Amino acid sequence: MPIEFSMQRRIQFAETDLAGVLHFSNYFRLMEEVEHAFWRSLGISVITKDKSEDISWPRVSVTCEYADPIRFEDVIDLKFAVTKVGTKSIVYEIGFWKGAQRAALGRVTAVCCTWGSGAFRSVPIPEHIRALIVNSADTNQ
Amino acid sequence: MPIEFSMQRRIQFAETDLAGVLHFSNYFRLMEEVEHAFWRSLGISVITKDKSEDISWPRVSVTCEYADPIRFEDVIDLKFAVTKVGTKSIVYEIGFWKGAQRAALGRVTAVCCTWGSGAFRSVPIPEHIRALIVNSADTNQ
Amino acid sequence: MPIEFSMQRRIQFAETDLAGVLHFSNYFRLMEEVEHAFWRSLGISVITKDKSEDISWPRVSVTCEYADPIRFEDVIDLKFAVTKVGTKSIVYEIGFWKGAQRAALGRVTAVCCTWGSGAFRSVPIPEHIRALIVNSADTNQ
Amino acid sequence: MPIEFSMQRRIQFAETDLAGVLHFSNYFRLMEEVEHAFWRSLGISVITKDKSEDISWPRVSVTCEYADPIRFEDVIDLKFAVTKVGTKSIVYEIGFWKGAQRAALGRVTAVCCTWGSGAFRSVPIPEHIRALIVNSADTNQ
Repeated sequence: MPIEFSMQRRIQFAETDLAGVLHFSNYFRLMEEVEHAFWRSLGISVITKDKSEDISWPRVSVTCEYADPIRFEDVIDLKFAVTKVGTKSIVYEIGFWKGAQRAALGRVTAVCCTWGSGAFRSVPIPEHIRALIVNSADTNQ
Repeated sequence: MPIEFSMQRRIQFAETDLAGVLHFSNYFRLMEEVEHAFWRSLGISVITKDKSEDISWPRVSVTCEYADPIRFEDVIDLKFAVTKVGTKSIVYEIGFWKGAQRAALGRVTAVCCTWGSGAFRSVPIPEHIRALIVNSADTNQ
Repeated sequence: MPIEFSMQRRIQFAETDLAGVLHFSNYFRLMEEVEHAFWRSLGISVITKDKSEDISWPRVSVTCEYADPIRFEDVIDLKFAVTKVGTKSIVYEIGFWKGAQRAALGRVTAVCCTWGSGAFRSVPIPEHIRALIVNSADTNQ
Repeated sequence: MPIEFSMQRRIQFAETDLAGVLHFSNYFRLMEEVEHAFWRSLGISVITKDKSEDISWPRVSVTCEYADPIRFEDVIDLKFAVTKVGTKSIVYEIGFWKGAQRAALGRVTAVCCTWGSGAFRSVPIPEHIRALIVNSADTNQ
C-alpha cells in the first residue's frame, strides 16, 4: 500500500553544466516538480487553503545520492513515494531512473505550515489533506 | 553626466551549460544583480516604500546581444548605465566586459509599479526616487 | 507556409520569484525548451553532427517583451515560429500564450556554428538541416 | 586544526521563490560557490590538471538541513569546513549564518575524478592537491 506517483521528465539544456551533466542542484528542482505533480494528482496544489489560511510544505531536511550522471535530453522516470506521514510532517523519496537503472535517490522531509505575513508556522496536517494522501495509496494499488 | 554604476562578478559553475559557457539566460540574472546593486548604492532597495505602498520595477522589454562567450571563473565588469528616465519608466544598459572587450550588451526598460495584492500597477516615479537617480549622476562624475 | 511548432508548459515553483511571478530571465529558458523541442520534432537535436563536426546554434541576439505576468502552475502555450532562414542564421519568435491572451513575446537570432575545442565558428547552415527546417513548413500546414 | 574557509554572499532576487525566501535548491548552489572559492584560495580551480588529465570533484552525496528562512538581500556568512580527507574523497560542511544564527547546514561528499571523454572515473587524490588541502589547515589557524 505504498503511496506512489511517477512522471517522466526530459532534461533541458539550461539544467546542464560545463561538465555536460545535470547540475547536482537541479535534482532538487526535479524532486519539487514531481512532488507538486503529486499534489495536483490529489486535486490540490502544494499551496492550498485550510479554512482561511494558506498551507504549504517547506522542507526541513533533504538529501540526494548520485549514482550515475544524467545528461541533456535524457528522459528520466521520477518515482515519488511518500514513506512516512507524521502529525505535522511527511517524508518522501524520489528515484531518478534511466530505464532500469536508478541514477539518483533523493529524500525530503517537509513540514505542513501556514505562512501568512511572511512567517512559516508548523501545524498538524489538516484531516482532509491527510485523507487525500492516505487514500491515494489505495487508488494507486 | 551619465548615471553609471559598475561591479565585478565572477561566473559560477552552475551558471554554465554543457557548451562550457555562461548560459544565455543567465546574462539577465547578472543584469538584475547590477541593477539591484545600483539601487542599494542609492540607499534604497529595488523594492521600496512610497507612502504606504510597495514600489518595484518590473521589466516590460529586455534585449541582449552576445559578442563573445563568457566562461567559468571569468571575472567580468558589469557596467550599468541609466540612459533614460521617463515619467513612469527607466531604461538602462549593461555592458559585460572582459578586460577591454565588451562580451555582451543588455538593455532593459523597467516600469515603476505598485504591486499590492498580487497585481502590478504602473505609477509615476516618486519624486524622492527620481531625485536619487538623477543626483547619482552628479555623484558619479 | 509559416514554420511553426507549439508545446504546452506548466510553470514550476522554482521558476517564480518573490514577486510571485515567473522570473523574467526564465522566459528565455522556456524559449530554449521550445526551440529544442522543435529540433526534436525534425528528428535531430540542437546539437547535431555535420560530417565529423558538432553543429549547434548559439544566440547572437535575443529580446523579450512582457505584457502580463505568468504565475505558478499556469499552463502556457509556447508558440514557436521560424521567421527567417538566412545563410548562416535563423530568426525565431516565441509567443507565450495564456489561453487567448499573449502574455509575452520573445525573439531570437541564432547562428549555425561548429564548436570543436571550445570555440564557436559560424558556418553556412548544412543543406540537410536547411531542408528539414523548410520542409517542416509544409508538414505543419 | 580544522580546514576552514568562509565568504559572505548576498541573496539575489532570482534566487528567491514565491514564498519570498531563498529556494531550497539554491542552497546547493551556494555550497558550490564557497567550495570553489576554497579551491581558489589554495591557488587552484575545482577543475585542475594532474599530469595530462583534468581532475574534478563530482558529488556522490549531499544533504541540507533548513532551520530558518533566508530572504532577498540578506547577507549571509558561508562557513566552509573540510571534515574528512579520504583516499579518493573529501567531506565538507557548509554553515549558512545570518549573524549569530545558523540558518542552514549542508554536507557534501565529493569524489576526486578524472573526466576525459565525458565519463567520470574516481582516482586517489593527487598528492600535491592533498598537500594543499591539509596545509590550508595550518595557514588558517
